[in-house]
This record gives sequence, structure tokens and C-alpha cells, in this order.
Amino acid sequence: MDRIMLAHGSGGRLSHELILNLFQKHLGNAYLNQMNDAVLLPGLEQIAVSTDSFVVSPLFFRGGNIGKLAVCGTVNDLAVSGAIPKFITLALILEEGLPIEELEQIIKSVSETAVEAGVLVVCGDTKVVERGSADRIFINTTGIGYVTDRLVEPKRIQPGDEIIITGTIGDHGIAILSEREGLEFQTPVLSDCAPLNKLIDTFYLPGVKCMRDPTRGGVATTLNELAQQAGVGMLLKEELLPLLPSVESACEMLGLDPLYLANEGKALVIVAPEVADEVLLKMQSHPLGQNATRIGIVQEGKSGLVLLETFLGGKRIVGMLEGEHLPRIC
Amino acid sequence: MDRIMLAHGSGGRLSHELILNLFQKHLGNAYLNQMNDAVLLPGLEQIAVSTDSFVVSPLFFRGGNIGKLAVCGTVNDLAVSGAIPKFITLALILEEGLPIEELEQIIKSVSETAVEAGVLVVCGDTKVVERGSADRIFINTTGIGYVTDRLVEPKRIQPGDEIIITGTIGDHGIAILSEREGLEFQTPVLSDCAPLNKLIDTFYLPGVKCMRDPTRGGVATTLNELAQQAGVGMLLKEELLPLLPSVESACEMLGLDPLYLANEGKALVIVAPEVADEVLLKMQSHPLGQNATRIGIVQEGKSGLVLLETFLGGKRIVGMLEGEHLPRIC
Repeated sequence: MDRIMLAHGSGGRLSHELILNLFQKHLGNAYLNQMNDAVLLPGLEQIAVSTDSFVVSPLFFRGGNIGKLAVCGTVNDLAVSGAIPKFITLALILEEGLPIEELEQIIKSVSETAVEAGVLVVCGDTKVVERGSADRIFINTTGIGYVTDRLVEPKRIQPGDEIIITGTIGDHGIAILSEREGLEFQTPVLSDCAPLNKLIDTFYLPGVKCMRDPTRGGVATTLNELAQQAGVGMLLKEELLPLLPSVESACEMLGLDPLYLANEGKALVIVAPEVADEVLLKMQSHPLGQNATRIGIVQEGKSGLVLLETFLGGKRIVGMLEGEHLPRIC
Repeated sequence: MDRIMLAHGSGGRLSHELILNLFQKHLGNAYLNQMNDAVLLPGLEQIAVSTDSFVVSPLFFRGGNIGKLAVCGTVNDLAVSGAIPKFITLALILEEGLPIEELEQIIKSVSETAVEAGVLVVCGDTKVVERGSADRIFINTTGIGYVTDRLVEPKRIQPGDEIIITGTIGDHGIAILSEREGLEFQTPVLSDCAPLNKLIDTFYLPGVKCMRDPTRGGVATTLNELAQQAGVGMLLKEELLPLLPSVESACEMLGLDPLYLANEGKALVIVAPEVADEVLLKMQSHPLGQNATRIGIVQEGKSGLVLLETFLGGKRIVGMLEGEHLPRIC
């Protein structure tokens, strides 16, 4: 394999290989190698930074658009890292011919979402490429936040901890897919795209061990990363996975596993068992956490392995995403 | 005009209109509206931030490649703002099918240039889009630097100040153009692409009033911006403009004005007349400033107007770049 394939952008195994074999090889340093969603800056311990480019297709979908997504994605990476998002930069790559009305709608969404999340857009950049050299608009946002005393990192995860998700899974993936394929469901699926920082402010307690937003690669890939980094096993229960009925039927119809679908407004939260009830109650008191629920536990042994106990009582391994599931989901 | 045109990305008049009519309209705040190369963060006065996306075509050119450019561009924006660049983020948008060998060359250049500039790549992101949806690779870098006590801002510019450029102009523009059009010159023109922070550390004195790197839109557009922001006039002398002979003949042959060509390793520096000699000597002692020279002066009245005294002794107005000169120059 000597060329970039779509799966290199999946967030799954090939993405990880590219990071290890290329980026860490040439650029590796203690900060980059943490491979966390956001990084604390050396010498500036009070600052956290995260960067993300957005290439979602289509640009507009039920529940959001690329502008809203570009703010949420970066805000959420900072927030799940325990930081308070404060500032974002906004860099646009535009294709010649993009209707300015569409651009304006997108920028309005950036503005509204920034207000909702309480972040300020502090600088920007615009490049334009010839027709055919990009697909309408790509957006990069880089976020800067204040570091808090919230200790959330994979190495704090221990056997016995509980795995909580702040709401239904797979909504964003199905919303994009149905838009793209022109699928119609009785109840249309909206993307869950939302800034999570205020929800996290609501439920955070010192017993929260680690948080992640399961975007590309979904819950399965994110939990595999955490299990590997923490050196623990995880056991999920299929019957506990919160799914909208329309997402469930879409997955059945299309043969998709919701554990691999992207979420853009959900956090996976690993908590000490003694605070799980309190954290859940607080989550459920916030509009973005109403459907928060336990989905599994952290186990001794089986280091790095994520298992799913199915409806039938059997167990199967839930690996990291292989290949490309849905390109350009974010 | 209801669609994005290439000229919206030129750095010239249409870019400015887009910023005013769309970005400042919806996202405007005191920080964004400064329209400076880098912004000082509110509440974090010690931090400066700058973001830039790079879409240069071709990816590889004499004197550099998109990876080197992506580090230099952001480092330079911070450095001319008076900050000490410390950290950069690196976000890649890759087209399916990009040879991994090319990607590796680009990442190696990122690494080498980061070492040269003394900055650390602290986080990254990779997205992949389908073949045909991007042109091989686009890179965003966002830079974070420490703010110094260097007071460099347009409002410090006064009549009588001298205008210095740290070296020959138009090299990058001609290097890209000759690569793109397959032009051969007797002495090939290399892009001047270089990180300027250490050069600036060498020559900076309190009498330095303002610095800018004249990239897209060239020296003419950058000086127009400064003249407008400072409410002063400027007078350049054509005979003082430092040009490589091959750039000069390329401009004559192709009918290009070097004042509008992009530079990626030059700073425009406005200084108080009493320190001009000292600043020039210091610049010339650094490899990147050997050809530093005065090119003009700041004048009373004629607010916002940049004039050029030609070889023949006449004067003409040098306006901001109109339309698109050379798309995808950076």
C-alpha cells in the first residue's frame, strides 16, 4: 500500500498506522505522541489546544451543517480533555463557484454555535481554489481552552469503573448517510451535532476518570483506544446501548453496526462506580444528556480488548474500525 | 456577484470585501476585527495565535514544498506580530490516491522547518476525501506564540518613518509560476520560503514600528493595508526595489508587476529614521537579510495612498491587488 486510501481518514486502524509510521516518526515529541484529543502546552500548562479539519459531505444535513460541526468538533475535543474552551480560529478553503449564500448560512451557524458554546472566533483565513480542486468548502478550526484541575486521562481508568454515554448513538452517522443516499425514514434522524462543554460542566465530578467524544470510528473505536491506553478490558451490553428506533431500523436495513457510527454531540464518560448514579442524574438534568445511560463496565485482564455481550447472551469482540465505514462523516 | 471567485482568495480587494461583508458581519468581535496577522488572546495577554491554510500548487517547487510553506507562513505571521512562535498544530486534508512517499517528503519538510524555526508541532488531524474532491493535499497550521514587549502595530507608523524590505521581492511568486508553466530561466528562481522569526530576533529594536510579511497580494497590497490602517501615505522608489535579475526578466517577459508577487520569506519593516541604519546592518548580518534595503518612506497626508516614483521620475498610484493574480500561490 503506497497511496492514501479513504480508510486512512476513517479514525480506525489505518489512521492509527499513518500516525505512528509517518507523523510520530518524523514529528514525534512527548506532546504529539500523547495522541489525545487536545494537548496541554509545555511551559503554558494553563492552555489546551486542539485542531480539526472538516470535510463533511453534504454540507447541510438534518440537525446541522459543516459550520456548526466545525465549532462543535473542536469545542468537544477540548471539553472532553477537561479544558474550558475559550477561543477558536477559523480557516476556510473554498471552491470557486460556491454560492455566497451558502457560505453565509455556514458562517451564521459558526456564529450561533460559537455563542452557544461560549467561545470567541479570534482569527481566520480564507483560501480559494479553482473549480474542481476542492468540494465546495473545507473548514479547519483550532481551539484554545483554559486547563482546569479536571483529571481526565486514560491511565486513571480502572477495573470496576462504569462506562456511560451521554445519549443515543449513531445519530450523526445515520443523518449524514440518509441525506447522502436520499433515504427517507418515517421519523427523520437528526444529527446530534452539539457543543458538549456546558453539559460536561453540569455533570463533572472528581470521580470522572476519562471522557472522549466518539466521532469518526464511533463508540467501538474510541473505547478500543481507551482500553489500549489504560491497559484494561471493557464489557459492553448490547441491551444497554441507547438507540433511536429510526437509527436502529436504518442500521438493520443497511447492515450497519451503530457502534461504528459517528456521533458529534455525545461523550463517553468513564466513572468510578460510587459516583455513577450522581453523574447520570446530573447528565439527565441537562437537555443534551437526557438519554444518558450506562452501557458497560471496565474489566480486569484482557488488556485492550472490548467485548460486547449480545442480546442472546454470547460475547463477541468489538474491534477498532477496519477500513472506511462512511467517508467524510465530519 | 453571488458566487465565490478565485479573486476572493487573492488577499486583495475582494478578500477584504468578503471579510467585511461576511466574516466581520456575523463573527465580528474586537479581536477578529483587528485583521492582524496574529491576535493576542483576551485574558491571556501573553499568548498570540494565527491560523493559515495552504493550498499551493504545485506541491513541490524550487526552494520548498507545501510542508515547508505551511510552517513558514504561520511562524512568520506570529513573528511579524512581535510574538515568539512556540507551537504549531498541523491539520491535513488528503486526496485519496496521494502517494504516501510524497506525503512523507512533505511531513519531513514540516519537521525540518519546525526545527529550524524552533517550534514544536503539538497536535494534528488528518482527513481523507475521495479522489477528485481535493487537489492532493491541503494543510492548515495554527501557531501559538508568546507575546513579547515588542510594540509593532500600524498605528505607530508616522510620516518620516522608513520602509525596509528584508530582501529581494517576488521570488516565491516567480518560482511557483515557472514551475506551473514549465518556464525555464538561465538562473532558476528559488522560492524565498523561510521562517523569519530568528532574523527578526536579530534586528528588532524599539524603533521598529511595524512589521508584515508580504505574501498573497505582495508588497503593494501589504503596504496599502498598512497605509490605510495608519492613516498615512507612502512613497516607494522603483530604483530601490531589490529584484533578482531572473525575477526582473521573468516579470518583463510575462507582464507581471513584482510589487504584487507573493513573498514567503520576507518582512516589510517600518522603522523610525534614526534607527534605520542600525536595523539594516543587523538584518544584513543574518543570512536571510543579506539583501535588506530601504525601499521608501512614510509621508504626511494622502492618507492610505501608496505611490511609486518610477525610473523616469514620474509617480503612479500603487493600489491594492485587484482580481486574482496567481491563484494558489500559498
